[in-house]
Amino acid sequence: MKLIRYGAEGQEKPGVIIGEKYYDVSHLVNEYDEQFFSGNAIEELKQKIAEGNLQEINKDVRLGAPLARPSKIVCVGLNYKDHAAETNMPIPSEPILFFKATSAIVGPDDDVIIPKNSTKTDWEVELAIIIGKKASYVEPEDAFDHIAGYALHNDYSERAFQIERNGQWVKGKSADTFAPIGPFIATKDEIENVNNLKLWLKVNGTLMQNGNTSNFIFDVAYIVSYISQFMTLLPGDVISTGTPAGVGMGQKPKAWYLQPGDVVELGIEGLGTSKQNIKSYS
Amino acid sequence: MKLIRYGAEGQEKPGVIIGEKYYDVSHLVNEYDEQFFSGNAIEELKQKIAEGNLQEINKDVRLGAPLARPSKIVCVGLNYKDHAAETNMPIPSEPILFFKATSAIVGPDDDVIIPKNSTKTDWEVELAIIIGKKASYVEPEDAFDHIAGYALHNDYSERAFQIERNGQWVKGKSADTFAPIGPFIATKDEIENVNNLKLWLKVNGTLMQNGNTSNFIFDVAYIVSYISQFMTLLPGDVISTGTPAGVGMGQKPKAWYLQPGDVVELGIEGLGTSKQNIKSYS
Repeated sequence: MKLIRYGAEGQEKPGVIIGEKYYDVSHLVNEYDEQFFSGNAIEELKQKIAEGNLQEINKDVRLGAPLARPSKIVCVGLNYKDHAAETNMPIPSEPILFFKATSAIVGPDDDVIIPKNSTKTDWEVELAIIIGKKASYVEPEDAFDHIAGYALHNDYSERAFQIERNGQWVKGKSADTFAPIGPFIATKDEIENVNNLKLWLKVNGTLMQNGNTSNFIFDVAYIVSYISQFMTLLPGDVISTGTPAGVGMGQKPKAWYLQPGDVVELGIEGLGTSKQNIKSYS
Repeated sequence: MKLIRYGAEGQEKPGVIIGEKYYDVSHLVNEYDEQFFSGNAIEELKQKIAEGNLQEINKDVRLGAPLARPSKIVCVGLNYKDHAAETNMPIPSEPILFFKATSAIVGPDDDVIIPKNSTKTDWEVELAIIIGKKASYVEPEDAFDHIAGYALHNDYSERAFQIERNGQWVKGKSADTFAPIGPFIATKDEIENVNNLKLWLKVNGTLMQNGNTSNFIFDVAYIVSYISQFMTLLPGDVISTGTPAGVGMGQKPKAWYLQPGDVVELGIEGLGTSKQNIKSYS
């Protein structure tokens, strides 16, 4: 099943994609939130959909992020060898974790605003895991029991804020609009092997990132298990699993950062595509 | 006004402290959450309390954290010169920011659980700011308009997870029970000068931290303004402003960390006291 949220910002309603069409399910589900992901709601929704007639939605509707604001976004740093190399960082011996403010979440095709005083706004196509069941001290072999699904995420990053402003990456990861998620959450049954998905990103039509999750240093089950040793993951929480090579910071001979007017397009096999127009703060 | 939440974990109701007594206000307020802090609810609650009879609560009730789960806890690192010195870190030229998982929040007197595989669980008495109005690109002179109040916070920290486990402090700050907040939120009108409050912490009766917020490197208005340059602060968000000298990591000749059976007591002038019994994970 593919979950979407549609409508104006702050007033999104839950929907689903079936085949190529969008349908409303707001009469069946209040919201894709912690309560929804924590129970048996995905299975119940599937059954209700099978039983009833759904109202189709026009596909030119705005999509919001495909889940309500989660308790946290946990990100894994440097989880592809080629990306570690391009940023001149060593291959991590265990996952690097950082947080991204949930206030950064926007819809998949919403505008991305370059923050005030930013000179180094950069892109990062990433596979996001959506937690389906509270996870604390979970073993890797049990990790998939705690996953609801997956989504496309662009982990926008202001490199000067992240690296040159005195400590802790969260500072460069949390500006408003820096977390476009979606177009949809694919429930985990839709994805045969999450550790073998192509992912790509283009800036103004030029292919910048072209990777595969098979190149993860730490795979999906390991990441969920690892994070759960340090904190409790709640239903609906988002884990962003790191980005492959090809970010702006890694360009040779000179780093290349986003400017107003740029267009960023990205996608992951089985998780759809998204497109952000880059705007200046006004 | 002093806001409390009381009752069993997960079922807390809103209340207030007037004089020395606790009163229920659950018929006047649903919850101390983003919606409550975003509006004029504090003033409205004051008026309703002045008008009506309140039901007194027995003071031996359990207190929860005095606010519902916020969107984020932003912490300031090394914000007292003496603490920077004891940890052998330079005085920051601008605030260091890190996040703490909101799933770590517990009541002020709840047990604190040493995480599995922890050897270096440490304490940090801190003044917490509670945001009252959305803050994005706020100037220091306007910062107090965006503050609802203040609370006592113990920013428990696992130093091995934080420093020795390959990157980003959030890893050592986010275990369950690592954020006892309260006993209450003092609305900002209760605190004459937030940048001149004594704060202290004892372990097993021995005074370990004994500081004053007048020794902040970056004061409250500056911190709110600074953070708002990097992310949007939402009503109810918590900012923890850093800890003075005297943490376990800073003890000489040898660092001293918490063990099951230890008792930690702490307080801030005008913001009450809290007490945590340290337990092992079972």
